[in-house]
Amino acid sequence: MENLVRDDERVDDLQINGYKIIQHPDKFCFGMDAVLLSSFARVKEGEKALDLGTGTGILPILLEAKTDGEHFTGLEIQHESAEMANRSVLLNGLSDKIEIIEGDIKEAAQIFGKGTMNVVTSNPPYMTNHHGLKNPNDAKAIARHELLCSLEDVISQTAAVLKPMGRCYFVHRPFRLVEIITLMRQYKLEPKRMRLVYPFEDKEPNMVLIEGVKGGGPQLTVEAPLIVYDAPGQYTKEIYDIYGMIMK
Amino acid sequence: MENLVRDDERVDDLQINGYKIIQHPDKFCFGMDAVLLSSFARVKEGEKALDLGTGTGILPILLEAKTDGEHFTGLEIQHESAEMANRSVLLNGLSDKIEIIEGDIKEAAQIFGKGTMNVVTSNPPYMTNHHGLKNPNDAKAIARHELLCSLEDVISQTAAVLKPMGRCYFVHRPFRLVEIITLMRQYKLEPKRMRLVYPFEDKEPNMVLIEGVKGGGPQLTVEAPLIVYDAPGQYTKEIYDIYGMIMK
Repeated sequence: MENLVRDDERVDDLQINGYKIIQHPDKFCFGMDAVLLSSFARVKEGEKALDLGTGTGILPILLEAKTDGEHFTGLEIQHESAEMANRSVLLNGLSDKIEIIEGDIKEAAQIFGKGTMNVVTSNPPYMTNHHGLKNPNDAKAIARHELLCSLEDVISQTAAVLKPMGRCYFVHRPFRLVEIITLMRQYKLEPKRMRLVYPFEDKEPNMVLIEGVKGGGPQLTVEAPLIVYDAPGQYTKEIYDIYGMIMK
Repeated sequence: MENLVRDDERVDDLQINGYKIIQHPDKFCFGMDAVLLSSFARVKEGEKALDLGTGTGILPILLEAKTDGEHFTGLEIQHESAEMANRSVLLNGLSDKIEIIEGDIKEAAQIFGKGTMNVVTSNPPYMTNHHGLKNPNDAKAIARHELLCSLEDVISQTAAVLKPMGRCYFVHRPFRLVEIITLMRQYKLEPKRMRLVYPFEDKEPNMVLIEGVKGGGPQLTVEAPLIVYDAPGQYTKEIYDIYGMIMK
């Protein structure tokens, strides 16, 4: 197993099913958004799920552990990330359940076929403002900024690969909520469930979790607020429960 | 002053500026939604504001007290409500600042002219499901159900009467948020600020407050959660502050 991990990488214990993940400290490491999305998303028995822009592979690995889904695919355009995510799959012995594919989100429907997935998840790049980016080829910049794909690419490809009544789950920044909702409606992914993540009870939310159903009827359920900290440095009980013991 | 109030009506003290409001206990009385909307909305010095479906006139009266706006108009289709709201205006000696007009929201642009208002507020009917309504002519039913106007009527007329960069403020139910945002975008009322009202910290929100700007650019600010109760029957400090002493 050891030869799956390179000297400049680290292995973090995900505190669920004994699963581990390989990350490169200088590159993009997964954040709380991915973990919260993995608890917000629902993948049922027999279902196939696709994660668009999977990065380290954190979403497929956590979803395999947390849900009853049958198969999980992660699509990642960056060669180094895809290759590392694939080694995490091997490290966990999950090759029969999880597949990492190197490829472009904009070509997801071509790669996987239209109407083939039950579930799509994505933790896409949040930022549209690329001014002042020092290195647009940097793995972190690509993960955070819409350099290689736009929100519309993510949503249109999600709609294309989902089966009718298939479900999608996104995590994003609240300041783009209007655009997210408008695009989801435009591509017939009706927003059905939403949760705002507030760092503190009296602060603005910094994440939004949203579920859409392809061809679903109108009527949104906004869930109870997800509050991260009770006090500075002290997570709420719900965050502890979601993380298990992954607190870093 | 006494002859402004009928025997079957009651007068409530609004606990601000000494203002009072006439209500009919058997008909629609204003709720927390109107009070929260009056604190969420901003009317600046010299501005003219219109409230669509003003009912008792609570919004114009509270906005006159809470903001620096120059003039406030309430539009109400129900004759009895409009007449009673007008008596509340007289009771408070506000005839030079507030005008109540009897008329149909669907004709707002005809009544007031296009591009004439700086601000529009509305606490429109929430419900689209009219099944089982015993008396669709009842004042409460008209205030609560989309019997005489739809959400699209409210939003399209708001867009029509607002000046460029004019602002609108709505309170509604979260389950219709997708429709609200989609319609606001469709009519070029960009949602710029939103706040969810949660009865308790761990419960689903039951109201959403939203601000739109006519012709505004994209980028939404979602504000801190507005939580109503600390414990059953015990309002949070913020609710006490908003209400002053109107707690009933």
